[in-house]
Amino acid sequence: MRASVLLTDLYELTMLEAYAAQRMNGTAVFELFVRALPRGRNFLMAAGLAQLVDYLSGLRFTDDEIAWLAQSGRFTPTFCRSLADLRFTGDVNALPEGTVFFADEPIVQIVAPLREAQLVESRVMNLVHYQTLVASKAARCVLAAPQRLLVDFGLRRSHGAEAGMLSARASYVAGFGGTATVEAGRRFGMPVYGTMAHSYVQAHADEDAAFESFARAQPANAMLLIDTYDTERAAHKVVALARRLAPEGIAIKGVRIDSGDLCAHARRVRAILDAGDCRGVTIFASGNLDEFRLRDIVAAEAPIDGFGVGTRMNTSADAPYLDCAYKLEEYEGQPRRKRSEGKATWPGRKQLHRRYGSDGRIESDLLTLAGEPAPGTPLLAPVMREGRVLGELPSLAAIRAHAARQLAALPERLRMLDEAAPFAVEIAPSLVRLAAQIDART
Amino acid sequence: MRASVLLTDLYELTMLEAYAAQRMNGTAVFELFVRALPRGRNFLMAAGLAQLVDYLSGLRFTDDEIAWLAQSGRFTPTFCRSLADLRFTGDVNALPEGTVFFADEPIVQIVAPLREAQLVESRVMNLVHYQTLVASKAARCVLAAPQRLLVDFGLRRSHGAEAGMLSARASYVAGFGGTATVEAGRRFGMPVYGTMAHSYVQAHADEDAAFESFARAQPANAMLLIDTYDTERAAHKVVALARRLAPEGIAIKGVRIDSGDLCAHARRVRAILDAGDCRGVTIFASGNLDEFRLRDIVAAEAPIDGFGVGTRMNTSADAPYLDCAYKLEEYEGQPRRKRSEGKATWPGRKQLHRRYGSDGRIESDLLTLAGEPAPGTPLLAPVMREGRVLGELPSLAAIRAHAARQLAALPERLRMLDEAAPFAVEIAPSLVRLAAQIDART
Repeated sequence: MRASVLLTDLYELTMLEAYAAQRMNGTAVFELFVRALPRGRNFLMAAGLAQLVDYLSGLRFTDDEIAWLAQSGRFTPTFCRSLADLRFTGDVNALPEGTVFFADEPIVQIVAPLREAQLVESRVMNLVHYQTLVASKAARCVLAAPQRLLVDFGLRRSHGAEAGMLSARASYVAGFGGTATVEAGRRFGMPVYGTMAHSYVQAHADEDAAFESFARAQPANAMLLIDTYDTERAAHKVVALARRLAPEGIAIKGVRIDSGDLCAHARRVRAILDAGDCRGVTIFASGNLDEFRLRDIVAAEAPIDGFGVGTRMNTSADAPYLDCAYKLEEYEGQPRRKRSEGKATWPGRKQLHRRYGSDGRIESDLLTLAGEPAPGTPLLAPVMREGRVLGELPSLAAIRAHAARQLAALPERLRMLDEAAPFAVEIAPSLVRLAAQIDART
Repeated sequence: MRASVLLTDLYELTMLEAYAAQRMNGTAVFELFVRALPRGRNFLMAAGLAQLVDYLSGLRFTDDEIAWLAQSGRFTPTFCRSLADLRFTGDVNALPEGTVFFADEPIVQIVAPLREAQLVESRVMNLVHYQTLVASKAARCVLAAPQRLLVDFGLRRSHGAEAGMLSARASYVAGFGGTATVEAGRRFGMPVYGTMAHSYVQAHADEDAAFESFARAQPANAMLLIDTYDTERAAHKVVALARRLAPEGIAIKGVRIDSGDLCAHARRVRAILDAGDCRGVTIFASGNLDEFRLRDIVAAEAPIDGFGVGTRMNTSADAPYLDCAYKLEEYEGQPRRKRSEGKATWPGRKQLHRRYGSDGRIESDLLTLAGEPAPGTPLLAPVMREGRVLGELPSLAAIRAHAARQLAALPERLRMLDEAAPFAVEIAPSLVRLAAQIDART
C-alpha cells in the first residue's frame, strides 16, 4: 500500500523550496484535530495511526520521483537534489487507535524539522481522516446493534482500493466482526465472511439447483441468498435441501436476505426454517443498512443474527468527511496561531487530559499546554521518537479491546444515535491566555 | 496502482469454486448500471474506463496470493491451482468516458466466461463507481462556473490514496483545469497547481517576510495566501511587495482567499490590488466550495479568477455513492432477470441508442436488446475483444473534449443545478416483452 511521496499537494513542495532558500528548518509542532463534529454526531473515534507510522517510517524520494520533479521545470536542481536524503526524523504523539475524542482535541501531534513536518501534511490527513471517519461511523453501528455480528460489505462502493482496505480495518477497530474483502483478511489478519451473489442463483436454470450446488461446493460455509425471486418460497427450498443433504453430513449454515422489508421477511423465514427443523440455520441481512436501520431492526426484535453493512458505513454517507485540519502550533519554541475567520486555532504544543468517574465513564476532557500539570490521564501518547517507532504498535486485537472500553466509557447520552448536548472540552486558562497574548502581538 | 486480485469480495471466490465444481463456465453477460440517480441530480457522467481496462488486462493471481488462499483452509487445493492460469479473456463494451448517462443505462457490459466475469465484479464496481461519482459531481461545478479555472484541492480528505488520485483524474475529465496532487500530474500528465499554506505564513515572524521569501523562491509562480490574519491588510502588503520586487523582475502572480465571505473579501482585495497597480494579480478562492457556492459567487459577479474545489467534490458530499449494480443479464445465450423487491432489472444483453435534435441537444435515449435495429447513435462501444484492448484508448485530452461536448448537448433543464423533471429513458417493447416472458417462466 506504499503510496508515492508525490502523493501530496504541490504547495508542500513549493513551500519546502522556499524554506530551503531561507535555511528555515527549525523544529515545528503540527497538530491534527477536528474543528467541529459533523451534525448529529456525539463523538469520534481515532484510527489510522498504524498506517501513518508506516508512511512516516518509509518516507523518501526515489530517484524517479526526483527526476520527475527536476524535469517539471518548477524547482531548482539544488532543491531537487536536496530531497534525496530527506527522511522523517521527528517525534509523533497521538491518541491510541480506538480512543474516543471530541472537537478541538489533537489526534496526532508531529514534532519535526519544518520541512519534514510540512511535507507530510497531505498524506497524514488523507490517512488519519479516512480511518477516523469510518471508525466513527462504524462505532455507531456497533452501539446500535450490540451483540450482533456486523460485517463490512462495502468494498464495491468504497472510494477506490485503499478506501476498501482501510474501511475494512477501521470498522473492525470499531467492533465489526470482519469484512467481505479478501485482501483485508490477508493484509490485516482479520476475519473474512462471504455468502453468494444473485448472479450465482441467476446463472442456474433454477434456484434449487443453485442452492444445492453451492452447499455441496462449500459444505462448511453454505450461506444461501434467498431473495433473488421470492424470499419465502426460497426459504421452503432451503428446508427441503437441508433434509436432502443431512444424510450426507452437509448442513446449511445460514441464509441471507438482501431486499424488501427485512424484519417482516426475517420473521416469516425464521418461522419456515423453525417449522422445517432448521433452527440452526442463521439469518443474515444486508441492503442499505446503517446505524439507524440497525437500531430499528434491533428494536423490532427481528430474528436476524448478523448484518452486512456496506456503502453507508464505508462512505460515512451522512457525513462523508470531517472538518479536520493539520496546523502549525509552534515553531522554534514559539507558539503560533491561525486567526482566519471561523478557523482560529488554540496555539502551542498541547496535551489532553481525560478524567473518568467512579462509574468508569468519561467525566471531563481538559486541553492544556504540553508539560502543564493537570489531573486525569494524558491521552496523547508517544509513538515515534527521532523517526523511530517506540516499541511495538498494539495488535488489532488490543486496539479493538481498547475501542470497546472507550465506547463503554462514553456517557450514556453520547452513546445515543441522536444528537445530544455536546460534550464540552475544557480549555486550560493557560491556553486562553496564550491565545490572547499572541493576538495582541500580531 | 495495481491492486491485488484479492481486492475482491470473498463470495466471488466461493462462487468461483462452486462454478468450477459444476464445470459451469459458459459465456456470461454482466452489465453495470445505476438504478436511480441521487436525489437532486439530473444526469451522471461515465468515467474510469481506462483504469478498468488496466485492471482487466493485468488480471492474474500471483503465487503468493494462491498460497494464501490455499492456507486459509476455505478452498480445495485443486481449485487454488486452477486460479494460476486465470486471465481475462472476454469482451468489454462501454460508454466512452465523459459520456452523460441516466438511470438504468448500461455503463459497462462485460461478456466473458462466467468465472472471469464473476470474479471481477467487486473491483469493476469499485473503479467505475468512484470515478463516475466524482466526474458527475465535478461536471456540476463546471456547469456552475463556466470559464473559470477550477482546480482539485481535495487529496487530504479524499478517502485514501486511490481516491485522491482518481478524483484528480475524474474531475479533469469533467472539465476542471487541474489538480494540486503532484502524483496525479505525474501519472496522468495533467496540470498541477499550488499556492502556499497558512503554516508557511505562521512559521515566519511576520506575514511580510513570508510573502517576500516565497515570491523570491517561486518567482514564476508566486501565489500568496492572504487570509491567515487579516485579509485586507495582507492585500496592502502584497501591493507594497509587488512594488518592491518589480525592479528585480519578480511579479506576484496571484493571491488566495480561503475563509470568510469570499465575495466581499474578493471585492475589497480587488479594489486594493487595482488601486495599487496590481491589475495583473489574480484572485483565487477556496474553502468548502461546491457547485452551489460556485453558482452564488458567479451570480454575485465576484472578481474571482479561479477556485480550489476540494472535499465536497472529491467525496461527492451531497451524494457520496451511487446506487449502482453489476448484474448478470444473460448466461449461455439465455436472458436472466433479478426480481428482488425494488431491485428488478431489465434482462438480456442490451444496447443504448441516443438521438440528438437539430440543435445538437440530447433528444431521447432508447434501451434495446443488443443487435436490435434502432434509430440514433449506439452508445456502448467495443473496448476489449477476447481480453485484448481494441486500438488505443482515447487520450485524456480527447476524453475532456468529449465530456465538454456531452455537457453542451444536455437539454437546458438538465444543466441546472436544481432537480428537474427526470430525463425519461425509453425502454424498447422487445425488452418489456422479454421481462414478462421470463417472469412467467420462473
